Amino acid sequence: MNLTINREVLLSNLNTVSRGLPSKTPLPILTGIKLYATETDLFMTSSNSDISVEVDITDASLIITEPGQTVVPGKFFIDIIRKINSKIINLYLSDDKILVIRADRGEYKLHIMDPLDYPQIDLISLENPLTLDANKFSNIIKETVFAASSQEKKPILTGVNFKNENGDLIATATDSFRLAQKKISIPEYNDFNITVPSKSLEELTKVIDNDIEIINLYLSNNKLLFQFKNVCFQTRLLDGNYPDTSRLIPREFSNVLKFNKDELIDAVERVSLLSPRDKEKEKELTYSIIKLAINTDRIIEISTTNASVGDAKEELIPTGLDVTSQLIIGFSARYLIEALRSFISTEISINFSGEIRPFIIRGEKDENLTQLILPVRMD
Amino acid sequence: MNLTINREVLLSNLNTVSRGLPSKTPLPILTGIKLYATETDLFMTSSNSDISVEVDITDASLIITEPGQTVVPGKFFIDIIRKINSKIINLYLSDDKILVIRADRGEYKLHIMDPLDYPQIDLISLENPLTLDANKFSNIIKETVFAASSQEKKPILTGVNFKNENGDLIATATDSFRLAQKKISIPEYNDFNITVPSKSLEELTKVIDNDIEIINLYLSNNKLLFQFKNVCFQTRLLDGNYPDTSRLIPREFSNVLKFNKDELIDAVERVSLLSPRDKEKEKELTYSIIKLAINTDRIIEISTTNASVGDAKEELIPTGLDVTSQLIIGFSARYLIEALRSFISTEISINFSGEIRPFIIRGEKDENLTQLILPVRMD
Repeated sequence: MNLTINREVLLSNLNTVSRGLPSKTPLPILTGIKLYATETDLFMTSSNSDISVEVDITDASLIITEPGQTVVPGKFFIDIIRKINSKIINLYLSDDKILVIRADRGEYKLHIMDPLDYPQIDLISLENPLTLDANKFSNIIKETVFAASSQEKKPILTGVNFKNENGDLIATATDSFRLAQKKISIPEYNDFNITVPSKSLEELTKVIDNDIEIINLYLSNNKLLFQFKNVCFQTRLLDGNYPDTSRLIPREFSNVLKFNKDELIDAVERVSLLSPRDKEKEKELTYSIIKLAINTDRIIEISTTNASVGDAKEELIPTGLDVTSQLIIGFSARYLIEALRSFISTEISINFSGEIRPFIIRGEKDENLTQLILPVRMD
Repeated sequence: MNLTINREVLLSNLNTVSRGLPSKTPLPILTGIKLYATETDLFMTSSNSDISVEVDITDASLIITEPGQTVVPGKFFIDIIRKINSKIINLYLSDDKILVIRADRGEYKLHIMDPLDYPQIDLISLENPLTLDANKFSNIIKETVFAASSQEKKPILTGVNFKNENGDLIATATDSFRLAQKKISIPEYNDFNITVPSKSLEELTKVIDNDIEIINLYLSNNKLLFQFKNVCFQTRLLDGNYPDTSRLIPREFSNVLKFNKDELIDAVERVSLLSPRDKEKEKELTYSIIKLAINTDRIIEISTTNASVGDAKEELIPTGLDVTSQLIIGFSARYLIEALRSFISTEISINFSGEIRPFIIRGEKDENLTQLILPVRMD
């Protein structure tokens, strides 16, 4: 193998491929990136237990004088290309053990691995795509993925469920304490009901940049392949049936409050500074429980009490309210803040149907986005 | 105590006082900030085993309707004031157990500690100052402090030594493997030879901002007080005699190389990507040893060899050279990079006097700044 290529082209493709490198792996070969140069194309591949990524570079700057293939240590290769300043980079397979990287007056020799040891990556064949607006799809992920579970106890909840029914694509994520759901209309396509590991989706959103307009989805039995520009990004699917969450979402509400989103986030962040938390997880806000009260005089108050430090209280002025009863409800400040941040709307509504019933949040400008939070019992 | 104050004034003073809060302490009262309001001034004090900080606020926005004193939980108090948006803040000591913070529609109640339990802070009396340009003094610290030892084995080396002799102030820091030294002329003052904990100096540089023009130093037997604007920042001094380092710095050089500083830093950073390192400390570059060679053809090369990953090599074009012999010298890449970053000069010189002798770095525009690095033996 012997080729030259524009450094920036190589680097931006390596950044994409890096998403498929494992953080830990029992298979050392997977810490490598497979390079495969034909007469015209440079393919780069990475793979871990969830994700496989392949890019196909045909950039005008790419000049391949000798095709070939090899597997280079991924992290070192990327670090070197990232640190190099030169415009053009030469990659040369000097014999079967060394890849030489030449750039200006620098020469880097990396011990390579045997490409024959690299596992065969079976990408789904590119037939019958579901074509979506890339930006819209990336947004669905961001609006839901944070609500997926990080606990491996119920593996199916560590993913985001995508259900296509009658032209509606519904994305749902829940960790049993909160739920995020978004619905969009999509082109006609076979019905499906799949659950994608949330880690895969987070990695995917990191490589969908603004110049990508459309993204093609290809589905197999247990895999999903995203294809855009010169990238194939494939993820495994989670086994098992995703729980039916439709009954969880209340439809009728006794109290509806509207707030300016940013003001509410600020007030909740301030109050939660004093909320009691698990010492082990001091930096997380998981355990920072706050209380929201609708008082008889219709003043809205959020508050917290911390036996060891003190109390915090903020009065809120809602931008709208439709209140039929008093209410005191306790919940995780972090869950509320993460839910609120998923909205683009300036004004959001919180819809309550009782002190021990889940409440839901909607945004005036966020069509078909529902965030649900389960309250905790207050002592 | 009952007072109102502009939030930004309070916050910027709290940021200064926060430098004296201990990260860990056996004395819980020291996690607090002491507030002491007279008819006209609000004093805030913090203290740990090394540093005591006192600010004296007399801002026009400060209105004290009731003098008093208390000790508030430092971290929580600062977090709350930082998160508040309102322009004006009211602090009110409701009874002997609670400080109430009121801001717009928020009310925060902090359990306070007994001010009588707060240790008496003896600040050096403000007589006979050594007055220095604040920016110049801050620069001396930054040019030397990184070279101080982080090991407690030789406590005196964990500080920066300041020696005043015949109107020259010489700052020296060394961890026995490298040394940083800077000399400036100062106004006439008694000779002194003191060693200041480097942690104290690092905290000090964080509060010397650009609007501080002069800084007054007051010296006692075992303490040093820095006074600027409305701040008194006092640190203990390190016990013991600082080693005489003057003999360590070579005066004659067989080989002098000049480089563009940024190009050299870039090349060293690239090469050190591949240098072997202690697995335990993978993120530190301490153990990344690189080699610099002056070859017979006068080409300068820096390189490294890593048995498990590969080799790296960069040829450097010096901007000047005065070479009398071949040379191969090994040293820590991190030490070289930290030393180089202490210079403002675009062009620096590296001055060698042998393969097993320390080499020194100077900058054309950095008068009286010397960085010295001890080589390591190459196998």
